[in-house]
Amino acid sequence: MTTLDDLPLRDDLRGRSPYGAPQLDVPVRLNTNENSYPVPEPVVEAIAKAVTAELRDLNRYPDRDAVALRTDLADYLGHGLTSAHVWAANGSNEIQQQLFQAFAGPGRTALGFTPAYSMHPLLALGTGTTWVDGRRGASFDLTAADAAAQVARHRPDLVLLCSPNNPTGTALDPAVLTAVLDVAPGMVVVDEAYAEFARPGTPSALTVLPGHPRLVVTRTMSKAFGFAGGRLGYLAADPAVVDAVQLVRLPYHLSALTQAAARAALAHRAALLGTVEAIKAQRDRIVATLRDRGIRVADSDANFVLFEVGGDQKTAWRGLLDRGVLIRDVGLPGWLRVTAGTPEETDAFLTAIEGLS
Amino acid sequence: MTTLDDLPLRDDLRGRSPYGAPQLDVPVRLNTNENSYPVPEPVVEAIAKAVTAELRDLNRYPDRDAVALRTDLADYLGHGLTSAHVWAANGSNEIQQQLFQAFAGPGRTALGFTPAYSMHPLLALGTGTTWVDGRRGASFDLTAADAAAQVARHRPDLVLLCSPNNPTGTALDPAVLTAVLDVAPGMVVVDEAYAEFARPGTPSALTVLPGHPRLVVTRTMSKAFGFAGGRLGYLAADPAVVDAVQLVRLPYHLSALTQAAARAALAHRAALLGTVEAIKAQRDRIVATLRDRGIRVADSDANFVLFEVGGDQKTAWRGLLDRGVLIRDVGLPGWLRVTAGTPEETDAFLTAIEGLS
Repeated sequence: MTTLDDLPLRDDLRGRSPYGAPQLDVPVRLNTNENSYPVPEPVVEAIAKAVTAELRDLNRYPDRDAVALRTDLADYLGHGLTSAHVWAANGSNEIQQQLFQAFAGPGRTALGFTPAYSMHPLLALGTGTTWVDGRRGASFDLTAADAAAQVARHRPDLVLLCSPNNPTGTALDPAVLTAVLDVAPGMVVVDEAYAEFARPGTPSALTVLPGHPRLVVTRTMSKAFGFAGGRLGYLAADPAVVDAVQLVRLPYHLSALTQAAARAALAHRAALLGTVEAIKAQRDRIVATLRDRGIRVADSDANFVLFEVGGDQKTAWRGLLDRGVLIRDVGLPGWLRVTAGTPEETDAFLTAIEGLS
Repeated sequence: MTTLDDLPLRDDLRGRSPYGAPQLDVPVRLNTNENSYPVPEPVVEAIAKAVTAELRDLNRYPDRDAVALRTDLADYLGHGLTSAHVWAANGSNEIQQQLFQAFAGPGRTALGFTPAYSMHPLLALGTGTTWVDGRRGASFDLTAADAAAQVARHRPDLVLLCSPNNPTGTALDPAVLTAVLDVAPGMVVVDEAYAEFARPGTPSALTVLPGHPRLVVTRTMSKAFGFAGGRLGYLAADPAVVDAVQLVRLPYHLSALTQAAARAALAHRAALLGTVEAIKAQRDRIVATLRDRGIRVADSDANFVLFEVGGDQKTAWRGLLDRGVLIRDVGLPGWLRVTAGTPEETDAFLTAIEGLS
């Protein structure tokens, strides 16, 4: 039998495993920061109608530039943005891959502040970019001075920031972004996949876009919109950035079905985003309850919570799974990440955690 | 205003334009080798039903491995293939990009025999792969000895063959594939995007897969299936190749809607592929009519025809567009490519061609 070792695979890929959390069929799945609420019936009907209207002409390629969808996304974001400032793809992973291809890649360097979204170094690997692991403090903290010093030292072509950060959940101090923008020689990407869940008063990097053509803000419909299965990520930036990613995007990358479904979801955003406050309440409940029990917990502006398990996190992860609750081992010794979902899921998680001790 | 020149774009992308034929709204569009027949109403209903069934749970990520879809694709291909031999993505462009990422990329080389599918060198550019333009004879011909000699000389990590070739339309001589497999030090990809339109007796490279773990056959549902707007490409190869592309694929790259729609289309393949014979008849009619008029035409096993215009192809392309017929200037001096569509579209094209002279 032929194995990977027999194929002329790139040396830098040898011995690696595909990215992805286990897709296990258990009662309570709180491992991939999905929105636990199904799509409401009126929105199902609207998306079904919009998608069905595309089907007869599926023999034709979709709008390669997805202009109508980008217009709707710009309208949702506000901040005076237009379709020219927005680009969309199959998930924010594809958006970020395009940014790596246009602005990083072979002979260039990207830097992120670890721990952060674990796909970022993998996107570097997949695009031949040299990855630099930036450091955080012992409590996953990042000060403006420290971030700027690391960027100044490594001079990366691409800096990746996450706000709120994944897996810690904490929003970026706006001073960090300002400091990094001041010293970064290349592009600065702020991954705002979870921005809709931020605590009150947390500014989006969108507010900083004017006057910063090297700043890119990426978003997704997978989380707050509950549209993970529809795969729609997007960016907002100076129109020149949109011109740049069009040089590396695959033609017709976004299907007619994706474009239609996402537009229908955006048109019904009040209904879809109606779950956000309920999820934030569960997030705050998890944080408060764990802290009441004396557990260290990172501040969260997201729909998930990072907490210390007091021991080996692999053992704790397995113990929770044995109790029917699937959460995420993000590879941080002693810590685990749990998604905030429905009140019943929080009950199950908190009960399972109690059962561990 | 900020322009691309102000951004830290990769040097190898400077001065380039996004890939893609003009998307113009004209009466007769024969420029991107779409299937001219809309999706039949019973298939529209089946796809609508399948997609609608996914919508309520769109808050959940899709099956990351798309196992059910890959099983259906293997069943369609036959040749004893299973889901383990098949991988799917958003169009065969994404499939081929993944192959470049896994087996080519920085420090490696890919070779195709020009003119061929013009995305191949762009995929090399986008993945940091060094591209080698292999040569064909004056009539776009490629002999086994010549192909093998070029591969032996350049020792590329990835060889790209197209059967039928695009833009010429001619199927690959099976002896070329055998000769290339014998000498290629790396992977050999046969792009069979148009395989369903081949003339009788044309073998698929699928027949050569057993015993050749470095051979990959790529396909698409965009052409014969009339599913261009649905974006579904796939590959068949040794299961180790599927393991390899999973190291570079983006997680959850294929939406729940795409998976469901493609499965419904495959279940109704008899209806969708029912247009193939009619399109082949128009293809043969275009070839015969142009030859009757003394025009040089490449043999076609595809749903398009490459023909010599007898002068500057840009002028001829514009002249046809002025007559309401949009075809493709593939950048081959003196030649143009036209898609075979409905009988009425062939009438319009042949009339417009006559009007040019």
